[in-house]
Amino acid sequence: MSEARSGGLSLLRDLPPAGFEEHFLTLLERPGLRIERIVSDGQVSPPGFWYEQAEDEWVLLLQGTAELEYRDDTRIMLTAGDSLLIPAGCAHRVAQTASRTVWLALFFPPA
Amino acid sequence: MSEARSGGLSLLRDLPPAGFEEHFLTLLERPGLRIERIVSDGQVSPPGFWYEQAEDEWVLLLQGTAELEYRDDTRIMLTAGDSLLIPAGCAHRVAQTASRTVWLALFFPPA
Repeated sequence: MSEARSGGLSLLRDLPPAGFEEHFLTLLERPGLRIERIVSDGQVSPPGFWYEQAEDEWVLLLQGTAELEYRDDTRIMLTAGDSLLIPAGCAHRVAQTASRTVWLALFFPPA
Repeated sequence: MSEARSGGLSLLRDLPPAGFEEHFLTLLERPGLRIERIVSDGQVSPPGFWYEQAEDEWVLLLQGTAELEYRDDTRIMLTAGDSLLIPAGCAHRVAQTASRTVWLALFFPPA
């Protein structure tokens, strides 16, 4: 029997260095599905900027904290382990991120 | 401006109690995509049992540790943050899990 070996791609080790921009890494892409890792270090959406996406997005915070804001002023705090569906067309922005915040984001066609 | 509120579904809080069986929770289901959370507490695949699935499976270990085994005796240790694609038809079994191990598993059609 062969020895156990460390496997897979770690989404939390060897993070890219913090910089001006967030880091986006496509982990897997299929028809109707894209998996991304996003590393944030305090970046937020520009004031007045709203994401309004053609795809549904399902996010899972893996590390750090983040705050999402919707156009009705609802604000959602996310900590590690929190998941959320952002339906296509739902205007939202990232109001706050801690340093070394790691997101998993899935994009797929709306229901 | 409304107050920040805690949001989304935590995949790590309020875990179901450890028992004889693993806990499977479907988080989202769409044509061509299923997102599951799996909570393991030491369970392993029965000796000689191999998963050979019709779908591709992408797993991400959120908490704990686990060991996957392939039919060629390759063993893969996974710790929190490790991700792995298990292609459809690839015979594998779960050789080891720690208590309170939490997996995110995505299932989608093979490439």
